[in-house]
Amino acid sequence: METTTKTGQPFDRAHMEQLMKRRLFYTPSFEIYGGVKGLYDYGPPGCALQANIVEQWRKHFVLEEDMLEVDCTMLTPHEVLKTSGHVDKFADWMCKDPKTGDIFRADHLVEEVLQARLKGDKLARGENVEAEKEDPKKKKKKAKVENVKLEDSVVTEYEEILAKIDNYNGEELGGLMTKYNIKNPVTGGDLELPVAFNLMFQTSIGPSSNAPGFLRPETAQGQFLTFHKLLEFNNTSMPFASASIGKSFRNEISPRSGLLRVREFLMAEIEHFVDPEGGKKHPRFEEVKDVELELLNRETQLAGKTKVETTPIGKAVSSGLVDNETLGYFLARIQQFLLKIGVDKKKIRFRQHMANEMAHYAADCWDAELLTSYGWIECVGCADRSAYDLSVHAKKTGAPLIVRETRKEPLSIEEYQIDLDKKKFGPTFKKDGKAVESAIEALTQDMREKLSLDLKNDGKIIVDVAGVGDGKVEIPKELITIEKRTRVEHIREFVPNVIEPSFGIGRIFYALIEHLFWTRPDDVDRGVISFPPAVAPTKVLLVPLSTNADFRPLVQQMGRKLRALGISNRVDDSSASIGKRYARNDELGTPFGITVDFQSIKDNTFTLRDRDTTKQVRASDDEVCKAVVNMVNGTETWDDVVKRLPIFDGQEIE
Amino acid sequence: METTTKTGQPFDRAHMEQLMKRRLFYTPSFEIYGGVKGLYDYGPPGCALQANIVEQWRKHFVLEEDMLEVDCTMLTPHEVLKTSGHVDKFADWMCKDPKTGDIFRADHLVEEVLQARLKGDKLARGENVEAEKEDPKKKKKKAKVENVKLEDSVVTEYEEILAKIDNYNGEELGGLMTKYNIKNPVTGGDLELPVAFNLMFQTSIGPSSNAPGFLRPETAQGQFLTFHKLLEFNNTSMPFASASIGKSFRNEISPRSGLLRVREFLMAEIEHFVDPEGGKKHPRFEEVKDVELELLNRETQLAGKTKVETTPIGKAVSSGLVDNETLGYFLARIQQFLLKIGVDKKKIRFRQHMANEMAHYAADCWDAELLTSYGWIECVGCADRSAYDLSVHAKKTGAPLIVRETRKEPLSIEEYQIDLDKKKFGPTFKKDGKAVESAIEALTQDMREKLSLDLKNDGKIIVDVAGVGDGKVEIPKELITIEKRTRVEHIREFVPNVIEPSFGIGRIFYALIEHLFWTRPDDVDRGVISFPPAVAPTKVLLVPLSTNADFRPLVQQMGRKLRALGISNRVDDSSASIGKRYARNDELGTPFGITVDFQSIKDNTFTLRDRDTTKQVRASDDEVCKAVVNMVNGTETWDDVVKRLPIFDGQEIE
Repeated sequence: METTTKTGQPFDRAHMEQLMKRRLFYTPSFEIYGGVKGLYDYGPPGCALQANIVEQWRKHFVLEEDMLEVDCTMLTPHEVLKTSGHVDKFADWMCKDPKTGDIFRADHLVEEVLQARLKGDKLARGENVEAEKEDPKKKKKKAKVENVKLEDSVVTEYEEILAKIDNYNGEELGGLMTKYNIKNPVTGGDLELPVAFNLMFQTSIGPSSNAPGFLRPETAQGQFLTFHKLLEFNNTSMPFASASIGKSFRNEISPRSGLLRVREFLMAEIEHFVDPEGGKKHPRFEEVKDVELELLNRETQLAGKTKVETTPIGKAVSSGLVDNETLGYFLARIQQFLLKIGVDKKKIRFRQHMANEMAHYAADCWDAELLTSYGWIECVGCADRSAYDLSVHAKKTGAPLIVRETRKEPLSIEEYQIDLDKKKFGPTFKKDGKAVESAIEALTQDMREKLSLDLKNDGKIIVDVAGVGDGKVEIPKELITIEKRTRVEHIREFVPNVIEPSFGIGRIFYALIEHLFWTRPDDVDRGVISFPPAVAPTKVLLVPLSTNADFRPLVQQMGRKLRALGISNRVDDSSASIGKRYARNDELGTPFGITVDFQSIKDNTFTLRDRDTTKQVRASDDEVCKAVVNMVNGTETWDDVVKRLPIFDGQEIE
Repeated sequence: METTTKTGQPFDRAHMEQLMKRRLFYTPSFEIYGGVKGLYDYGPPGCALQANIVEQWRKHFVLEEDMLEVDCTMLTPHEVLKTSGHVDKFADWMCKDPKTGDIFRADHLVEEVLQARLKGDKLARGENVEAEKEDPKKKKKKAKVENVKLEDSVVTEYEEILAKIDNYNGEELGGLMTKYNIKNPVTGGDLELPVAFNLMFQTSIGPSSNAPGFLRPETAQGQFLTFHKLLEFNNTSMPFASASIGKSFRNEISPRSGLLRVREFLMAEIEHFVDPEGGKKHPRFEEVKDVELELLNRETQLAGKTKVETTPIGKAVSSGLVDNETLGYFLARIQQFLLKIGVDKKKIRFRQHMANEMAHYAADCWDAELLTSYGWIECVGCADRSAYDLSVHAKKTGAPLIVRETRKEPLSIEEYQIDLDKKKFGPTFKKDGKAVESAIEALTQDMREKLSLDLKNDGKIIVDVAGVGDGKVEIPKELITIEKRTRVEHIREFVPNVIEPSFGIGRIFYALIEHLFWTRPDDVDRGVISFPPAVAPTKVLLVPLSTNADFRPLVQQMGRKLRALGISNRVDDSSASIGKRYARNDELGTPFGITVDFQSIKDNTFTLRDRDTTKQVRASDDEVCKAVVNMVNGTETWDDVVKRLPIFDGQEIE
């Protein structure tokens, strides 16, 4: 997909990827062993960038809202993920070529083939089509673009299918493959129909082989399983949120798109627990209600369209488009976070999940998607998971994953209550007494009402008790009373609902770099990455004017001073020209440069350079450090600094 | 093992563990599902403590020494760990009771049984023995202590075995079991001999089943595999270190001892790459040479003793006890780190590995052990792994995991060189030409010397060439010259050696809490944890004197102010007494408390309380904040603060 950089040039992915690899932002894992698809290592700048994004996330969410951060294990026993539904449902559809053994992910295959056909159609119609770049080193499994014109109606059909490609299940994907004659794109061979492939990595815990487990596919389950402890830690006060930052794993069928679809990835997830009664209000919704989001709603997509509408979140919630305030609050906060770390506002949209995409229990779900050269990519999911997770785990284990709160007004409940004459009951039913008693206790209100009439009319009732006699037990009125009475309830018990903002840090990392990568017109071979100071891997480059030893003490002193202020810095005292040294660090996204020159030795002043404008100011060491600290903490911008410190445009140092 | 708290009281593990669980420092994972042995979750205070320890580690090592931090994947293909030796050797010895199916870790079993017998002997001799605490909830697999006196010589034998229990291989453990008649301690049944159990979790990567992989057992391998890229990133400058912080996994046979032996754990590992020539000097060794360490050397242990010697690291290196400066440098730096985060100096020792314990390639290896109620626990390993890892991976993959450096003085090498007459060579050997040529090129210098004499004497040589004729090929002197010549080498190539300090963060976390846990004589039911301010989960507790609403704005203002200074804080505005609120936070190790009272409303002064002394000072908000920041950053101590701010001993607020 053709996208443009922040300066409006066409984005050159090959250039950016080459920079990423050369400067060791990230690199395929196990490359010297031939690599493993979907696994990447982060080198020093990537590692620092990732840590800074996480740090900002922690500040923006965990600290700002007093969330309870937890760190749960990745190893997860089978039973937990069976209960959560992952063992049965966490799968993609794959289809196999029985001849070659090739395996395809069904939805991706359909998408790719139809896109190739649409492209072929455009070619046939003489329209402009982005040239396909071939990578001769890569074994191509891609669908070929052939110059074949399609019927207008077929074009419309294809476009509609593509707009809702995430909405098909395996059977439907199989139907599309048959209907549109989709084959192995390399050999043209027939494919088997899609079958489910579970995406969890399986292993075995302990020395005996009867304890199967998985690597977690999300950090959420660990948080749900400790809900009752977290609630107690929070002095049983609601609502509250837990949060977790850690790796999760998905055994992708066919990883592609670099960092965007990987098998091991860092997630940051919030589980906000809220009372389902009262419309899931959020106490701070007022603060964000005017935040405007680009929304792509469910209906638009089902109609085969992708038009977004700019909507203040307040309006989206009040109109019912976004299900509730808490969900809306987090959508706005997600956007604020993305903007804070440097994501391009024009490249964010929120896409609502379609019915089939969403888990059956979810009340509503929106993805924050970021525009990249691979198209719109889901980077943050924000789902209302309702009471599903807590309920299933509580049901399975009997654990009290509930909230008990004292009602402000006691609740009066009219209900049929049953009293048994225990003294007579035992001797009458002997060893069956317990079973009969349990069966009576389990009677619903409707049945109790009916039986109270039977009792009045017949002087006895007949109750179903499995395993006792013929399963029907007669109870005479001497043993039992059934009466309508009023019960006053002081305590309310409820299962909280969960709003879950879930961040794929690796995807955000990648999209962010695409958004911030550009080149200067006078040096198009070198990239610049305009990280905001707070997330930049290194904040300051220290450059002595030359390798002259006289500069060294000042460089060291400045390095120590900045380090003490918490500002990461690196020295480049190589013999390359200053311009070249700066350019090398523009590639790493280092926002500031401090030059030590002969003037510095005389009067302890230094030049401070801004990466994006390449403008410089000159000031004392204290002033320079203060300006850097302010810009990193966000209390000043470069524009502010330029206004108050003297511009330096002495010699063009090259 | 009986240990004492920092105030000299007996350490009460049950009390501490109960506190850990109640205040959610950590908790068994999946507890509502019955739990999985060896897996623990960290709750909010534990999560913060862990993050702070990691933060201090990153400052102390990565930032201070400009290490290259990387983040590599946990999923690791089989081939990598086959090459590293883990597939074949990363195992513990387990033995099975064929009747009950019980599985024991052999070394632990021998240890436990002999210890129980020694205890029984002491009882029989009427000596004082620590009472065995029984936990009726736990299924006991422990060896029973029976009142049986042993021969004096047997006692000595047992003690010697226990002192070197880590030094036995499977066969030897089997021998001990037979010799000392060690059975299933619960049933008394016979056990099978020990067999190796590989400790890696296995899984399968991708949709086909032919890509086996493991969860990494250490973070080191990923660092080795990117060595050449890191070297280039470092401008090919040596020495340098990479570092990595992340989870690793060991499928323990029978996890026990809480956080000390778990199946998933956070590691922080450094791989310091150093030129093996020149004695592995370290440029900063001078800075640490006077640091005194408690050393337990190999010979002492093999003699069945555990006596440590206090030795300055400079002396330990110069005497050859510690193999080299770089290893010694890191031992000292490890101790400095441990002290910085609050480990008790009296509870640190460095134990040298015995021969069998150490990998065959290692030059030397020392563990930093911390004393806990479970005994001395390995918390940091520091090994000289020599060139082993880089060599085996380079050999397997052909990747250039080497350093090439220009020699200061070119090196002249006398060697036998071979010239072939290529024009005649081809026609003579035809299709076998390549094979013969390769065989000649592979000849060693010794063989070349011998063959040069043959050539002179016989006018021909005979070379072994597998697969050509009968494997012997005759080459006449017309085709070949062998001469001794001088070659000048300008470039030196070498495989760096690796010094690896490897930190088990979870074990340090646990030992640290044991070292810092104590109780006040006047409130023995409540624990206090004296975390240094820098690692404390929360730095400040904010307490309004009462629930009076007038205090709220000041509390909020102080909270914001501290947060802006990067100081984490929590409010306790419950109706409990101030004393009780402070005591609750002593349990969390919160070092400072700030009280908002009526005086605060009048003049904006606040009391600042120190956790350990419970003393208070009173000052303006700015002064109080400044003191807290200084104490967290370590530029001031409470003693300093008390000297310059007025003591507050107004009403005893209870």
